[in-house]
Amino acid sequence: GPGQDCAILQWPPERRLAYKIDQVVEGVHFVLRGPEAASPRQVGWKAMAKACSDMAAAGCWPVAATVAAHLRSDLNDAWALELYDGMLDCCRRFGFALAGGDLSSGGPAVHVAVGLLGEGPDGRDGAGEPWLRRGARPGDALLVTGTLGGSRGGKHLDFIPRLEEARRLRLRAGLDVHAAIDVTDGLARDVGHLCDESGCSVELERSALPVAEALRGLPADEALRHVLADGEDFELLLAVAPEALGRLLAGWDAPVALTRIGRILPACEARRIRAPDGSLSPLPDIGYEHRTATDGECA
Amino acid sequence: GPGQDCAILQWPPERRLAYKIDQVVEGVHFVLRGPEAASPRQVGWKAMAKACSDMAAAGCWPVAATVAAHLRSDLNDAWALELYDGMLDCCRRFGFALAGGDLSSGGPAVHVAVGLLGEGPDGRDGAGEPWLRRGARPGDALLVTGTLGGSRGGKHLDFIPRLEEARRLRLRAGLDVHAAIDVTDGLARDVGHLCDESGCSVELERSALPVAEALRGLPADEALRHVLADGEDFELLLAVAPEALGRLLAGWDAPVALTRIGRILPACEARRIRAPDGSLSPLPDIGYEHRTATDGECA
Repeated sequence: GPGQDCAILQWPPERRLAYKIDQVVEGVHFVLRGPEAASPRQVGWKAMAKACSDMAAAGCWPVAATVAAHLRSDLNDAWALELYDGMLDCCRRFGFALAGGDLSSGGPAVHVAVGLLGEGPDGRDGAGEPWLRRGARPGDALLVTGTLGGSRGGKHLDFIPRLEEARRLRLRAGLDVHAAIDVTDGLARDVGHLCDESGCSVELERSALPVAEALRGLPADEALRHVLADGEDFELLLAVAPEALGRLLAGWDAPVALTRIGRILPACEARRIRAPDGSLSPLPDIGYEHRTATDGECA
Repeated sequence: GPGQDCAILQWPPERRLAYKIDQVVEGVHFVLRGPEAASPRQVGWKAMAKACSDMAAAGCWPVAATVAAHLRSDLNDAWALELYDGMLDCCRRFGFALAGGDLSSGGPAVHVAVGLLGEGPDGRDGAGEPWLRRGARPGDALLVTGTLGGSRGGKHLDFIPRLEEARRLRLRAGLDVHAAIDVTDGLARDVGHLCDESGCSVELERSALPVAEALRGLPADEALRHVLADGEDFELLLAVAPEALGRLLAGWDAPVALTRIGRILPACEARRIRAPDGSLSPLPDIGYEHRTATDGECA
């Protein structure tokens, strides 16, 4: 449905099939020239990993991918093969198949669309149904994986989609994960999406925000702006029942951090951020503008 | 696998899940300016129907679609909504869901990728497994639906994918359909794909080829060139066991024609076309160049 990271089908009726299509476009999600140029392998990895990140945000696991790539005619077969290698790297990393594809060329920009089929929890394993963006409740803790704000420093090309962390969360927190999303538009915007869909508000703890290594040395305000506004961190943001929080954090032995960064409030409260001195500021509406006003995740 | 119209997964093991991603690109599959300009509704229809045609060629039926559309920034919301309407027209026509999507803009050309999930025969209904391009055997009759050569006259924007005909063929011919493909590169090329994959040769009957209404009035040789070379007719081409042929054609009461246009030969024979006077010519290697040498259907 609208505002979700993946479509979820009941097919066959007793199974949950997650289904995602995603795209990366030259000039929007990567560039091929200049100091920030991506290699074809990086483009392939990003295209596949981006779809995987949405699968992780739904608490699902990828099973098979298909790819439709449209290249510029000045790119040769070696380029296409490296693109393919980057996609395969991601498939292999997470043990799913590249089941098919369509490769063509002739357009003015490289465009790679990835379709991803995944398997979701079906209520029989005690881990509940696939996660949605809606479902966060006042009192829930807001958690995030990894660190934030490193995307512009290059992370957007080689991030690791948080599939393994999502699986661990499902097994350990089960029904206590109330809502989830991945950070693609920047923390402030994506927290906003979660609140919009859940009909709630939020308070972030400024001192708790896990800051990317790439931002060390920047003035605090500037680093905060990157943490709140930079998109494509592809970390998971989760609303978790408060009674599960202690158990979950105490038992979290994964290499990727899991950090409590705030809490869910009733909708009547302001969306805000709390400074170390206790003062509150409105959560700014800043984010990563890789997409336009007409954008949506799943229709 | 390679050279197939859809990926087929056994998931769950007893079911056949067909999975396709396809794309249409401005300047390659349609234009938006000039006398042949497509409306956004036509672009939407074509994008969805093209994926459906591959589903039909596998003998499968679509269940759910997802769409990743990337628009030029000069196209407004009304344009995007009409595009969406065109896709929905196709979904409604064949009774399947548009389950999700991703809409973005900013690139230099419109690009629409469609992911399509379908249900395939699973051997339990007596209709066998999904159809592949391989499997044609010497002695098989070569059949085609509808008429050929009308694509450049506009059919490529409003063709009807042959899903209903494929379903009818499955129910009536079952295991006697040995191989199938849809005509996208032109009859000569697509017959070639079927032969390449099946390890066989072919003889077409020139007088049997069903010529599109749009070609009437053209000199015979010119009409034949269109029939053989024009792509995007999106008709089905099938290799059918000879013992099923009479029964199948006699009982064929669908509004769309089903025509025997030739027969499958052993690989040692030349690929050829037979004139009404009985003379044989090599099947020319002509086709519709909407794609490049590096293209492939499913990897």
